[in-house]
Amino acid sequence: MSTETTPLSATPRTTLRRHKERGVAERSSLYEVLDAGLICHLGVVADGVPLVLPTAYGRDGDTLYLHGSSANGAFRAADGQHVCVTVTHLDGIVCARSAFSHSVNYRSAVVFGTATVVRDEDERRQALRLITDHLVPGQWAAVRQPTGKEMAATAVLALPLAEASVKIRAGLPADPPEDLDPSVWAGVLPMSVVFGEPQADPRVGAGVPVPAHIRRRR
Amino acid sequence: MSTETTPLSATPRTTLRRHKERGVAERSSLYEVLDAGLICHLGVVADGVPLVLPTAYGRDGDTLYLHGSSANGAFRAADGQHVCVTVTHLDGIVCARSAFSHSVNYRSAVVFGTATVVRDEDERRQALRLITDHLVPGQWAAVRQPTGKEMAATAVLALPLAEASVKIRAGLPADPPEDLDPSVWAGVLPMSVVFGEPQADPRVGAGVPVPAHIRRRR
Repeated sequence: MSTETTPLSATPRTTLRRHKERGVAERSSLYEVLDAGLICHLGVVADGVPLVLPTAYGRDGDTLYLHGSSANGAFRAADGQHVCVTVTHLDGIVCARSAFSHSVNYRSAVVFGTATVVRDEDERRQALRLITDHLVPGQWAAVRQPTGKEMAATAVLALPLAEASVKIRAGLPADPPEDLDPSVWAGVLPMSVVFGEPQADPRVGAGVPVPAHIRRRR
Repeated sequence: MSTETTPLSATPRTTLRRHKERGVAERSSLYEVLDAGLICHLGVVADGVPLVLPTAYGRDGDTLYLHGSSANGAFRAADGQHVCVTVTHLDGIVCARSAFSHSVNYRSAVVFGTATVVRDEDERRQALRLITDHLVPGQWAAVRQPTGKEMAATAVLALPLAEASVKIRAGLPADPPEDLDPSVWAGVLPMSVVFGEPQADPRVGAGVPVPAHIRRRR
């Protein structure tokens, strides 16, 4: 398997493409898939063994920021090393006429690169703002800012969006013509992520409304 | 970072635990988190570089099965090697009184082990049945079975559920007492995955109903 660097504008890695037509090698698609997600899966190698950890993230232009506890061994292992960060949205189950043609509709972004633990305090604070506002836009400005102690307890990882593979599968089952028996049901079970009604912490004072920016998150 | 094997019944790896209270080291929880998911993220090391790929899966007792194209380089790289498979459910955004205490409610299972490409045809077929029925229970028996050519085009990876870490975060923000200003809204934005109405392929004959087992999937 090749590990050479492939720029996003070129053809994605062959090793990642199960179906060539799903390679959507455009930066705007990469941004869309990343910005629509809330958690990513960070892959790091520690002592030769892969770890895959879910974590929150934010994006600033062509830099992805992840954060975690400064005690997080995976973050220490990632510093200066090759990592892989994947964001996946599941959009539906594709029910075909054959077991083989079953699939899922999805959008995924797989980002490869060398991660760096951010040490500059201004960049660290800016990254945490991005990550917080990625969860709920506007939330950073609405809540108490981090203390020095809290900043020290937090590690921030930066990953350039230089090499990535975006894949999108949408639409109908891809059955071969000989399987198109009209008496067999086939189609898509659409899936989506929905937000429920905001649940206030019971320690919030009576009459304190849900802030407008949190209502908008839904 | 230690890479020693830790049985599920023991304390999960320190390197994976950001918060000790989230370690739920019970096999039933592992099954629940795995069985409630539809895709996992497979982490493999190829030429020293981590890859994290979304893929479908199924479970048979204490074995996890993943499938992909037999041309999939990641599957070939995984054969006989340490891999990490992670399933994550996002249940909500936890809006706290400070940026630092923001979090997400989630359930995750991180499974470590040595993967094996399955070569026994009976086991391969059984694994594909499990993966198909994991997407839609009952679907395997309702559709055309794989041909020899389709079986040859499919790779199946097996991973024993010997070492895993299950983490669950649920409930309210965990703000420290000094942040509990009753005039500040805090709480949880619940999230869930929902299925929409099944969308029939237009090539399905008029009057062919959505099968009961697919209706039940919702």
